[in-house]
Parts: sequence; C-alpha cells; structure tokens
Amino acid sequence: MNLEMTTLDGQASRCEADGKAIMSLIEELFPICRSITGSGLRRTLNILQRHVPLVVNEVPSGTEVFDWVVPNEWNIREAYIEREDGRRIVDFAANNLHIVQYSRPIDATMSLADLRPHLHTLPDRPDWIPYRTSYYSENWGFCLTQRQMSSLGDERYHVVIDADLAPGHLSYGELLIPGQLDETVLFSCHVCHPSLANDNLSAVAVATMLGRYIQTLRPRYSYRFLFVPGTIGSLSWLARNESAIGRIVHGLVLSCLGDAGAMTYKQSRRGNAVIDRAVAHVLRHDAATHQIRPFVPYGYDERQYCSPGFNLPVGCLTRTPNGEYEEYHSSADNLSLLRPENLAHSLGVLQQIVAVIEGDAVYRNRNPKGEPQLGRRGLYGAMGGGRAAASDQMALLWVLNLADGSHSLLDIAEQAGIPFQTIRRAADALIAADLLEIASSAP
Amino acid sequence: MNLEMTTLDGQASRCEADGKAIMSLIEELFPICRSITGSGLRRTLNILQRHVPLVVNEVPSGTEVFDWVVPNEWNIREAYIEREDGRRIVDFAANNLHIVQYSRPIDATMSLADLRPHLHTLPDRPDWIPYRTSYYSENWGFCLTQRQMSSLGDERYHVVIDADLAPGHLSYGELLIPGQLDETVLFSCHVCHPSLANDNLSAVAVATMLGRYIQTLRPRYSYRFLFVPGTIGSLSWLARNESAIGRIVHGLVLSCLGDAGAMTYKQSRRGNAVIDRAVAHVLRHDAATHQIRPFVPYGYDERQYCSPGFNLPVGCLTRTPNGEYEEYHSSADNLSLLRPENLAHSLGVLQQIVAVIEGDAVYRNRNPKGEPQLGRRGLYGAMGGGRAAASDQMALLWVLNLADGSHSLLDIAEQAGIPFQTIRRAADALIAADLLEIASSAP
Amino acid sequence: MNLEMTTLDGQASRCEADGKAIMSLIEELFPICRSITGSGLRRTLNILQRHVPLVVNEVPSGTEVFDWVVPNEWNIREAYIEREDGRRIVDFAANNLHIVQYSRPIDATMSLADLRPHLHTLPDRPDWIPYRTSYYSENWGFCLTQRQMSSLGDERYHVVIDADLAPGHLSYGELLIPGQLDETVLFSCHVCHPSLANDNLSAVAVATMLGRYIQTLRPRYSYRFLFVPGTIGSLSWLARNESAIGRIVHGLVLSCLGDAGAMTYKQSRRGNAVIDRAVAHVLRHDAATHQIRPFVPYGYDERQYCSPGFNLPVGCLTRTPNGEYEEYHSSADNLSLLRPENLAHSLGVLQQIVAVIEGDAVYRNRNPKGEPQLGRRGLYGAMGGGRAAASDQMALLWVLNLADGSHSLLDIAEQAGIPFQTIRRAADALIAADLLEIASSAP
Repeated sequence: MNLEMTTLDGQASRCEADGKAIMSLIEELFPICRSITGSGLRRTLNILQRHVPLVVNEVPSGTEVFDWVVPNEWNIREAYIEREDGRRIVDFAANNLHIVQYSRPIDATMSLADLRPHLHTLPDRPDWIPYRTSYYSENWGFCLTQRQMSSLGDERYHVVIDADLAPGHLSYGELLIPGQLDETVLFSCHVCHPSLANDNLSAVAVATMLGRYIQTLRPRYSYRFLFVPGTIGSLSWLARNESAIGRIVHGLVLSCLGDAGAMTYKQSRRGNAVIDRAVAHVLRHDAATHQIRPFVPYGYDERQYCSPGFNLPVGCLTRTPNGEYEEYHSSADNLSLLRPENLAHSLGVLQQIVAVIEGDAVYRNRNPKGEPQLGRRGLYGAMGGGRAAASDQMALLWVLNLADGSHSLLDIAEQAGIPFQTIRRAADALIAADLLEIASSAP
Repeated sequence: MNLEMTTLDGQASRCEADGKAIMSLIEELFPICRSITGSGLRRTLNILQRHVPLVVNEVPSGTEVFDWVVPNEWNIREAYIEREDGRRIVDFAANNLHIVQYSRPIDATMSLADLRPHLHTLPDRPDWIPYRTSYYSENWGFCLTQRQMSSLGDERYHVVIDADLAPGHLSYGELLIPGQLDETVLFSCHVCHPSLANDNLSAVAVATMLGRYIQTLRPRYSYRFLFVPGTIGSLSWLARNESAIGRIVHGLVLSCLGDAGAMTYKQSRRGNAVIDRAVAHVLRHDAATHQIRPFVPYGYDERQYCSPGFNLPVGCLTRTPNGEYEEYHSSADNLSLLRPENLAHSLGVLQQIVAVIEGDAVYRNRNPKGEPQLGRRGLYGAMGGGRAAASDQMALLWVLNLADGSHSLLDIAEQAGIPFQTIRRAADALIAADLLEIASSAP
Repeated sequence: MNLEMTTLDGQASRCEADGKAIMSLIEELFPICRSITGSGLRRTLNILQRHVPLVVNEVPSGTEVFDWVVPNEWNIREAYIEREDGRRIVDFAANNLHIVQYSRPIDATMSLADLRPHLHTLPDRPDWIPYRTSYYSENWGFCLTQRQMSSLGDERYHVVIDADLAPGHLSYGELLIPGQLDETVLFSCHVCHPSLANDNLSAVAVATMLGRYIQTLRPRYSYRFLFVPGTIGSLSWLARNESAIGRIVHGLVLSCLGDAGAMTYKQSRRGNAVIDRAVAHVLRHDAATHQIRPFVPYGYDERQYCSPGFNLPVGCLTRTPNGEYEEYHSSADNLSLLRPENLAHSLGVLQQIVAVIEGDAVYRNRNPKGEPQLGRRGLYGAMGGGRAAASDQMALLWVLNLADGSHSLLDIAEQAGIPFQTIRRAADALIAADLLEIASSAP
C-alpha cells in the first residue's frame, strides 16, 4: 500500500476532482424514489455498479431475519390528490417525498375530514415536505407543505395511489475487495431514502468513491462495503453472513457526509476498539473541529452491528448527525445542502482512517539498549527539511523508545501526540536502517 | 416489591404525612437525656419499639469488645450549681446539655477558681450551651452559656451532681426485617446524644420510618437497622455478630437528616461498592444539589464498619455533615433546626436507594442478534404518554443493548444517564414481552 | 535513618550553609573546560573526590558500548583567531565556549569566506557566545558573539587550534554508598559541559552534596551517583554494569538545579513508578509551584536509562528544564544565573524524596477490627501541640485504616493528602504503641 498517496498533500491535489465526482454521482441518484425494497432501490444499486463491481443480492419477501420478516416489495407508479375540478394539489410526480413510503394502493374520493388523518406536514416549516414511512404497519398517506395543507377547502378529494405491495425481494449491494488477510473492514450505509441528499446519498456516493480508492491499493485487510436498506437490510446481511461476522475487525456506518458541519464520530459499543481510536486520532490531527461521542443504542445500522449478540467494533461517522440539522428528513435535505468540498473532505478523512488501519502494526527496536547512533546513519535531519524536521526527529525517538513489541504504531502516535503518518514514516525509515523489525502485524 | 410506590410521584403524595410523622417522633424523643448507656437511652429505644419491632440488647459493663471495654452505666437524677444564697445558676433540669456526660457524682462547695476548670462554654456563641462528654476518663463538669459564665462572681458555689456511674448495661436496638435472601442491608445510626435534634434524632426517626416502610415491602434482601451508642455501640454489635458480618452486602450510616442543607454522601472505604454507586445515582437524578465525598477515617460509626478488619461496604448519608453546621454539638441543634419537608425528603432519598438495591439484577437479552421488532409488540410508545415517552423508548433500547449477562441494571442506568426506575420499568416491560430473562439476581 | 533530619524545619537551619557550600563548589568548577573526555573532565572529577569518595573510571577510546564507540580523547591547549596584525579577535583563553567542542587541530591562514562556515553566533543575542559540539563527525569551529562576528572585515585570518584528538580514555565518576539492601537508587548527572553553570554544574554540585548527606545516614537502599559525560557516558556505564542494572529500583537524572524557576519533574517511561509518585508527592507538599510532565524520549540521559531494553524507573528532576530558559547553551548560563537559595532548595527537595524512598514500607494494623482506643494510650493529642495536632490525629487514623498489608505509607500519604513525613511519624508512634507491625519493607 502506498501510504504517501493518502497524505493530506496527496489528497489536496485530488480534492477538487473528488468533490466533483461525488457530487455528480449524487445528482444522478437524487431523483430516484428509493425505499427499503423496490425498483428505485434496484436502479440505484445498478448505477453504483457502473463505478464499483457491486454484487446485488435479492432476499425474498417473507424471509425471516432474526426477529424480523422481510416485507413485501413496494413499487409505486403514480400518486396524487385531486380536487373535484381535476386540479392536482399534491403529486408524487413533483416530489417523491409526497407519498408516505409503503402506502398501500387506493383510489377513492373522500371528504377533507376523512383525508386529514392521512396528511402529514411540518407546521413550523410551511414550505418543506416531511419524509414519512410506514413499513411495518399497513397504511397510506401523503406528505405535503403546510402551505398546501392550508389551501385545502372543505370539499371532496380524489385520492389515487397506484402502487404494488406484494411479494418480491429486498435488494442490497455488497462490494468485496479482497486483501492479503481474511480479516475484514466493514463500511455500511443505508440506501433506502428517496430524494434526500445528505441523509444519505452523500454517504452512498462517498462510500462508492472510497471503494474505488481502496481498489487501487493492495490492501492488507479485506474490505466489505454494504449498501443496504436501513435496519431490515443490515439485519438481512447479518443473518445471511453469520459465519463471516467474526472476521470483521473494524467497521464504520457512514451517513450525512456532505453538509457543512464538523465531523462527528459516534464510538462503537466497545468504546475503545481500534476503529474508535483510529478515527479519534485522525480527527484530532485533522484541521477541522470535530466531536467524539460515546455509543448510544439509537441511530443508524450500528444499532444492529453493535447489538449484544454481535457487538462488532463498528462506529458511525457523520458530519452533522441525524436529527441535529433542521433540514433532516424533509424536502430541504436536497442537493443545495451539499458542497463538493465537504464531500471531498469526508472522503479524505476516510482515506486517512484507512491509512491508519492499514499501516498499524507492532514493531520491535532491534537495538533496544540505549539509543542507536542515528547521526552516523544519516537519520538526524535526513528525513525532511524545514519545519517538519523536528517532528520527524521526535517521531524517530518515539518509535525507538516504544517499539518494544507491546505498542502498536497507533499507540505510539497517540502517546507522542504526532500524526500517525509521521510515525509510520519514521518506522519505515528505521526499518530501512535495519533498526526496527516487525513484531506482529496484528496490533 | 412494588417499585411504583417508591417513585417520586408516589412519594410526593406521602411527603407531608411522612414529614409530620417523623417530626412528631423527634419531638417526643427530644427532651430525654440519652447517653451511651443508661435509662434515657433505654427509654428512647422503648419509644421506638412502639413504631417498629425493635429488639433491645443489653451488654454488661466490663464486656470486652475488641480493644475496648463496655463502660459502667451512667444515670443522672439531678445536677446544679448553686450560689451561696441558694439560687441555682446552672441546672440540669433546665437543659440536659448542662452536664458533661458521664460526670461522676459530687456534692461540694468550692471557690470559682476551683470550679472554673470544670466549666465549658462557647465564647463565640454567648447564648449556646456546648455538648461535652468524658466517657472514658473519670471527671465531672458543667456546660453553660458564656453569658452564664460571665455572671459568675468570685464567691463560693455549691456543686451537686447526683448520678450513678456503676456496673450495669449498654443498651442498643436492633430491627431485623428478613428478606428472601440472607444477604443483608445495614442501616446504622447513633442514638446516644441527649437533647440534640439534627445530630442525631433526625436520623433515628427517619431510620425508624424507613424500617416501617421496608416492612410493608416483601424485600429481596434482609435488612438490619441498628440504633446504637456511638463507637462502643457499633463495636459491641460487631463483636457480638462477627459470624454474620460477611452477609452485609450494602450499608449506610445515617445522621443529620433534618437540616436544610443538600444531601452529602461519604463513600465507603471501598469507594466503588454498589452502595456507593447506588447512592450517587439516586442523588444525581434527585432534584436537589448534593455532594459525593471520598471516605476519610473520621466521622461516625462508618469508622468502625470500615476498619480494615471488616472493610464493609458502608457509606454515610447526611444532609450537612457533622461539624459543618455551626449549631453542631450545641444547644442550638434543637427542634427549630429541623423542617418536616427536609426529613421527608431524606426518607424519600433513602426509599429510592432501597429501590435501586432491591431492583438491581443482571439480565440477558433473549434476542441478542440485532434489535427485536418492538413495534409489533406494542413497545414503541406503549410505555407511557407525553414527554416521558422518549426517555422510556431509550430505556428499552439501552436495556436490550446492554443486557448481555454482564451489565446490571444499575450499570445500564449509569451508562444511559437515565434514572434507575425508568430502566427498571423498561426491563419489566421487556420481560413481559418475553424479550429479556434474568441472568443473575446478584449484581 | 534519622527522618527528623530531613524535615523542612531541620533543613531550614542548614539551608544557608548548604547554599554556600554548593555555590562555592560550582565557582571552583566553573572555569574548567570540560568535554565528554579529556583532562578538564578528569580534573573536575578529582575536585569532586575532595567531597565524596568518588571512584573515577576510565574507558579506553574505541570501546564498543551498544551501538556506539567511545571516541578519541580530546584535549585542547590553545585556540584563537588572529587578524593579520596579530590582534586576537576570538580567544579560547578568554572563554572556553569559544571553541566548538572536539574541534580538530588547525593552524592556517584563510579568507573570511573560508572561515565563515566555521563560525557560530546567536544573532538574536549579540553579546552571548553559543555552545556547540561536534563529537561524532570530525570538524572544527569557533563560537563568538554576534558583535564579534560583525566586526570581522574582509581580510585574512590566522586560525589556530592547538588540540589533541587521539586515543585515550573517557572518564566518569561513580559514588557508591552501600545500604542495608542491594536494591539501588540511582542519581545521574552529566558532567561534560564546559563553563556552563545551571546546565549542569548546578546539578553536579547538588548531587555531590546529596551524596555527602546520604553518607551521614545509614540508608536502607544502596545509592549510586554517576557523574558522566552525556549519552556516551551513561551508555558506557550501562554497558559495563549490565548485570547490576536489575537492582536499580528508583532513579533520577539531575540537571539545571540552580535557576529561579519552579521545580519540574519529568516522569520515567513507566509513568507510575514509585519514584514518579514519590517526587510528585514531595513537590505537591512543597511550598513552591511545580510541574509534572510525562516522559518524552528527548532530554538528558533518562533517554538511555529509559530505552526499551532497560526501561529503568528513572525520571528527571530540574528547575527550568533544558531549552526552556533563554540562557541555555550559551555564555549567559553562567554563575550569575544561580542563587544559593535555589540550589539549597533543590537539595532540600532531593532530601525529602530520599526520605520518602527510605521511609516507605507496608504495615499491618495489629488491631484491625474497629479502631483501637487511642485515648488510653495517650495517642490522642500526644503527638504534638498547637496547629499540627489535627493533622497528626488524622494521620494516626489514616494509617490505622489503610495499614492492611496492601497499602504502603506512600499510598496512605497520597490517599490522605497528608505529607509523607507526618504519616511516617504516625506509623512510628503506632509501632511504639504496639498497634502496628511491618508487613513488608519493600513497598
């Protein structure tokens, strides 16, 4: 693995191109009406397949996955509310958030009083359409702006939902990048939301580009990217892959990676897994402010990966977390909320995290009694010039001092307060000078 | 055990009645001249027996208890200082603090110069009588106000102390409430102070009412309430019950529970015993401010329970601690220092602590792989209405996530930052839904 | 060991005498041109021998010590830069910092352009001469003030360095004070700097006086004081004493002990060794402000003692650390930077540290069940008078409570927040009263 490619300098030159590529993929995916099953979800996975060799899995409706059952497949063609004069007030064709996901078919004329319980708005945000679902209890409904709602008079309305809710399949995408080891790093994102941009097309697109990037490496670990419908999708994958779950050694759930907020990391249930430390280390040395939060059993699919029967070392990386930006779960979570530079920055942070995971190992100082004479080996001042030199010098001394077979490079980077990549370069220089040897590749 | 009875709501309705009952008992006990032995102590225990089935134990003078010997029994009938004209200046009949406890009998006339070394005042508080004792070195003396002292002219005084200091018994009270388990919770308070209200009739009365309350439960643990003379009383109990001491799994020394100060908890010598965590948890979620302090080997009978040969998990719960309010150990520590609402609040906190101890256990999620589908079991929003719902929902998720056979409910409540009773209700709901099972009743 | 001699009171009376004696020794040593080898170093050790029975060891040039080789011995007689008119501009005779240490001999006339690369100044401090060395790559050079440098015109200069750089020996001094135990306490200071006062004659002289002081005790531990050239000297000692290294149980590198800054302690690599706790304890109870810093693999010879192959419990005690005062490594680090009272204070702190190390042990309460009755043994109020009494009383209670065979006196002092010497006196009083017995002399 060429670690230099993952340095901030390397990223800087690719940043603009990355941002554009991610944004362009999001723009293509945005109009599609995704749900936890159905043709919109399938079309989305097919588009991702143009970028990475995604395998699309199909799980039949009715399949039992732990305590759950895969629901019927939902496909919608048309949905609207029409006045008696034939004018359409609310139309799925205008915005796919107008329909409550998993609405059953209906074609009826009814009074406003009868219609009202099926209408959902955001009274405080009169121009936004909310996002609502009813996956597991059969129902129907429309989401509309408060302004639309206010315009409804006491007349009769023609309500049409032309949808199928019938046995079919749940689809999810899986990208496997084999590494030198069977030990696997998991990246998971939910791909079931309709036209919502930050939650979660931002992460779907960033994960796709991260997958492309890792394909260009010869990684030590194997990598598994999951593009799954929330909850039922991750549960389906877990149920179908129980024997392989023990090989997952690090993991991240990704979401909300395009807004302008600072990076936020929610730790795995374990709290002190290597992934928890690696992410915290990268964020601490990244220029941006950031937040580290302890695990709570609410959020995205980390709820499933971190359930006590699995307890996988899987954290959750976002910019502004779910529910903490006001556009969340509304039509305002659209393309205008995203910035290419934020998306590229999120990708860069993930690449740095991968570099830590890939580059970490336990070394042993081959000359542990006293310091070796670095000067005659050209290691004093030989690693770089200018202001970086002092930090490089200290990195050499830290690695020599702590490379006793019990500290990983990440341990050393944390104790030294020096970025991992500098510590890693120092280790490489010491290996080249025959002063260091590998003790264990598994930290 | 009906946990609902111990919630804050349940307590609110009983608060006024509790406060009145506790205050009334204190008022009855206040005039009695208690000491570490004698008829006043015995009378006090007899009054408590009207409220709870206290066993009164009598330990003969001269009994060796570890490094100590039970002293002679002290009984006083009359004590005064008389001017030559027969006017009494200081009279035990007016306030039983006027006599130094354990004063030997005397009937003599002497000069002020000879009398003076036997007189004790609080110069900074000219209207308060100090409280003084001389249990273990034979002496005699009077306590008086600085104002009384200043009025003494250079004449001769007739000094009378009509007291017995002779072989007899040391009395202490013991209330045992058997539970389902032999493991025992200890509550201990000192009952040897004469007319002092906060230190310690407040705790004597609150403990009595707590005993009454626990009698109405069918507790899991056995409970042992000790009403003992300070130091020699707890040592006597320890010496006579050495074989049972290993069964004490939680304990609290109680004192100063009626003043207006915030609750203060002094940890057991262990510092991280379950009682330490339970009390801290209850105080953290209680409305009032509070203090948690580490163990120090000075204070009340926790000094004996926490001596290294026993090292029992016994902390000390007070409002304002001994020595930290100015009325402490003076005639100003009287009924006017107490408020029924403070006494009732102290009882309520103790009931909550009992609820944590009683309700704690280790559970196991029966569906540990992924989350169970709470919706189809009516557990989403089914636990309560309005604002409490979100916390109840989170409580369900926390219990499911951490019920892995290694976290107790108290562990879960602490990690979730949710009150124990909410966590306990969530566990009960999950048990009812067959989603949870007991792993171990002993946390 | 007479612990009373090490109390602050005892030191107060000796403080002025100590300060004078240390200062006087420094003044004698200051003019000598020391280096990592050579006659100046040898003369310095000989002067120290007048105060303590130092053994001077000689290691032949060319000896391999771990990754290093002992260099040739360097001796300098004369060095100067002369104008064509014979006027000396820079003269070693005026200040021995004028010569780059280990300069090879030269006698040549050259242009300013050729001379310039061999001249070193401190441009920001135009009147100070820097201190420079070139031990391990053969070179020559002069250090001068920026003012001298500015006066150099474009003419030819006669450059003379009359020095030997030839096989000889590296000298170091070693003072062994045998104690009752083989377990050894190490004090190490570098003695290789020419006319620099704070770095490090201050520590050389303080260590000498500390050695004298410990000789007057009958110490429990053995003590080993090293006066070594930096890096190569400590490495030489380590290489020649590998079999004895395991007996070093506590150690301190000493430097910069005469300036006006607060005491600074840099922890050993272990971070929580007894020496780390003992120094922190003494500094915490010392009147002065102080700093405790974690280990970093840069600094003085603790780099060697704490290399992973040895990992000795050796910290570093200074006032202002190396590189953090502006006079560091320049002619301004001279006698005027030192104050006798600072030197004496440093010695006093070291004596207190020795008192903790010497006085620490693990005891067992012989009466562990309940408190013993201190009153009848005269231990209440019997230890001292006035304001010290309360602290003494608490010390008795703390020792009785924690002397359970698993807490050392230092543990007790830390938990009690009471100075070690008070705890130690309490332990002595309890031993005298037969209430305490030794459990283990090795904490």
